[in-house]
Amino acid sequence: MTDLATLSVTEAADAFAKGEATAEALVRASLARIDAHDGKVNAVIRLDREAALEAAAAQDKARAGGVRLGALAGVPMMHKDMYYRAGKVSSCGSKIRKGFRPTVTATVLRKLDAAGAIDMGTLNMAEFAQNPTGHNAHFGDCRNPWNLAYCTGGSSSGSGAGVAARFFAAALGSDTGGSIRLPAGICGVTGIKGTQTRVSRAGVMPLSFSMDNVGPLTRTARDAARIMTVIAGQDPLDATSAPEAVPDYEAALTGDLRGISLAVPREWFFDGADEVVVKGFESALEVLKARGAKVDYVSCPSLRAIGTYVSVVSRVEGATIHANWMREHPGDYAIHLSGRLFGGYAIPGHYYVEALSRRGPLLRQFCKEAFAGHQIVATPTLRMRVPTLAETDIDADTANWARHMAVSANTRPFNYLGIPTVSVPCGFDDRGLPIGMQLSARPFAEGRALQAADAYQRDTDWHARVPVL
Amino acid sequence: MTDLATLSVTEAADAFAKGEATAEALVRASLARIDAHDGKVNAVIRLDREAALEAAAAQDKARAGGVRLGALAGVPMMHKDMYYRAGKVSSCGSKIRKGFRPTVTATVLRKLDAAGAIDMGTLNMAEFAQNPTGHNAHFGDCRNPWNLAYCTGGSSSGSGAGVAARFFAAALGSDTGGSIRLPAGICGVTGIKGTQTRVSRAGVMPLSFSMDNVGPLTRTARDAARIMTVIAGQDPLDATSAPEAVPDYEAALTGDLRGISLAVPREWFFDGADEVVVKGFESALEVLKARGAKVDYVSCPSLRAIGTYVSVVSRVEGATIHANWMREHPGDYAIHLSGRLFGGYAIPGHYYVEALSRRGPLLRQFCKEAFAGHQIVATPTLRMRVPTLAETDIDADTANWARHMAVSANTRPFNYLGIPTVSVPCGFDDRGLPIGMQLSARPFAEGRALQAADAYQRDTDWHARVPVL
Repeated sequence: MTDLATLSVTEAADAFAKGEATAEALVRASLARIDAHDGKVNAVIRLDREAALEAAAAQDKARAGGVRLGALAGVPMMHKDMYYRAGKVSSCGSKIRKGFRPTVTATVLRKLDAAGAIDMGTLNMAEFAQNPTGHNAHFGDCRNPWNLAYCTGGSSSGSGAGVAARFFAAALGSDTGGSIRLPAGICGVTGIKGTQTRVSRAGVMPLSFSMDNVGPLTRTARDAARIMTVIAGQDPLDATSAPEAVPDYEAALTGDLRGISLAVPREWFFDGADEVVVKGFESALEVLKARGAKVDYVSCPSLRAIGTYVSVVSRVEGATIHANWMREHPGDYAIHLSGRLFGGYAIPGHYYVEALSRRGPLLRQFCKEAFAGHQIVATPTLRMRVPTLAETDIDADTANWARHMAVSANTRPFNYLGIPTVSVPCGFDDRGLPIGMQLSARPFAEGRALQAADAYQRDTDWHARVPVL
Repeated sequence: MTDLATLSVTEAADAFAKGEATAEALVRASLARIDAHDGKVNAVIRLDREAALEAAAAQDKARAGGVRLGALAGVPMMHKDMYYRAGKVSSCGSKIRKGFRPTVTATVLRKLDAAGAIDMGTLNMAEFAQNPTGHNAHFGDCRNPWNLAYCTGGSSSGSGAGVAARFFAAALGSDTGGSIRLPAGICGVTGIKGTQTRVSRAGVMPLSFSMDNVGPLTRTARDAARIMTVIAGQDPLDATSAPEAVPDYEAALTGDLRGISLAVPREWFFDGADEVVVKGFESALEVLKARGAKVDYVSCPSLRAIGTYVSVVSRVEGATIHANWMREHPGDYAIHLSGRLFGGYAIPGHYYVEALSRRGPLLRQFCKEAFAGHQIVATPTLRMRVPTLAETDIDADTANWARHMAVSANTRPFNYLGIPTVSVPCGFDDRGLPIGMQLSARPFAEGRALQAADAYQRDTDWHARVPVL
């Protein structure tokens, strides 16, 4: 019999809808995986065991009574511990907010609730979502289910590790410089950052208003499509949320890539790239070609300027948000985080305004360079092989700084550009750690990126492999 | 016979529409005033004499042929030299842009053209719109028509002086910290800064994206209402322009203030205020009361924080816009302006983001403090009597700095708050220089502020007095 914990979001939802699995059985399977393995992985911050079982029982009763439930009914999820639920602690992975109980509930949680997702609790993350590796000095580092000595990627560490470990079918992460796509790529699962402003940020811990994104980590692109269809869209509580109508993203998943052309930028993404990673990425391109896609290498000089500006924006906005705490108790931050924040206070305002002012023109330039005649931009999620926790620990040794920062080199540009980007697993390196591929599309063309990701997953099974724990 | 140059916008437009005056006669009357007096006032940078006469002749011909022309047909105008017209020099009052020929035409100019206004050329202004007095080292200082030793207020110096001197019926100014309302208040004319984002800024020299406003200086509130009806509204070329529908502002001018309640903030606006100014302002309140309005003094603690933030935002954005020129030829700026800009480069980014982040909450707080039960906030446009050019010249003597900066103390807060504010003349001080009153309303309630200003002008004739030149 299939372990229900291994079902994807759509499989679990379908099994529940057809009466092949009860919500309670789905939740119990998740809880069993967590109980068996989270001692090693450390993905979970708070497990709402009883509440999850009660919610499941209520759904089972409703379904038995003929009530038609939502597109995610019966599906166990947990979320990065920065999505506010009124009255529940939201630690943001920090010491400073360890006891913080918000009075509001995030719009995305309300939407997932309304669609029937069962929220089982909260997940480990980088402190205040501010590192790309997942190190956490307050809750302990989250560990990669494929090899516990390796990092999970961050900042949505528990989301990536937990989905990979089959603790739950999906988890929300957040992505300001790669924080969804990195744990997806590094843990071997699927993650999507939508177009900037596509998903409401109301009730979500802010890091950088201009670059923060909400999105899911899942096993499959189809799962991501279903969840994005539920959570995307304009929100009166988030004045920055985009008014564009939300399509049914699953309807775009045709499997057919004929007529689709992929651009691979020559610049930036391959600078000092590990050859094992490049080989994995190139093999993935062959799979896409076999599905009908064309692949062209293109030149994108715009990427050079983007690399600088992206950090200026997130550093300055992060420094602003943390200004009072940094004055009052800087010692409550991990050493690497207070160091990172301190740097932000020294960035002059005009450099920040310049970085934001150049965003529109650089997006236009990048679109001309990369999307002229192409619908998709494909890049490796990481340039390097997945590093260990030790070799990216910058609190222990500042010599690790360059390696730590290099983790997010390939994900950051898409936050500045604001374009939708999916990361899908596309193989394993010579040490058995996952390799990831990013598929980006034009603004608001999430469906296009998901279509390519789904087509790829029809011919590969990397996303379906389960780590031995 | 009436000198046609003394007609207001609506009077001139009506006279033209009824065939009582030709456009050519209206333009010739304006040119005659300019020829006679601009040698003293120095309001004009470029006079497009022939083009104006040709445009007038074309309108006269069209009208004679039965063509129905726009709401501003026949009305001579000139504009601050920072509204771009493709192919024409737009100096921005600077040495740096003395030969700048834009390739685009400002949306507001296109709207005024379409309404039939006759554009006779461009006007003196503070260099890059960056001082509140109107001093200009490159084109010479503009002088107050009421007394040539006195400043005009800035930065729209030529707009205020020219409308006061009856050189033309109306002029566009721009207002980032008071640059429309100050020359209006100081030269004894009417000026309106709409709600932030109410009027398109496409094709207009930027100073500070977050605080720049386009608006007219006119003799009367009715004139301002007619022009705002023409120029306000969403513009596809200005992504920041507000989508709210534009009413016919003239229709709001009922003259009736019964049921209207004015709030006068106790804080900020009267700190160190000159008693002659306060007396003039209080007399104006009595006129409004006689028209049916109630007046209450209210407490607005929010104003203390606003005073700081407003400068942070405009300084940082100004520094960004001028960054390349300040690196390449700082000596081409007036001493006071390069000094002002240099300071902007030292403001840290997080302080700028804080200032912008607090804007919404402080607007909400101010509205609670000032607009609860009130429709209008009334304040003096200046705290001080109009100063001389000499005593506010900071290039000549930095001891004048405090006086120079104090000029805009009462106008700046409304740029940060973003609320619509009209300045109307409300008397003369003991030296014969004008006193001004600001009337502010809630966001997008321009009509309300104009209604109060118009009602006031029905019972007073300050706006109708003509300086002897």
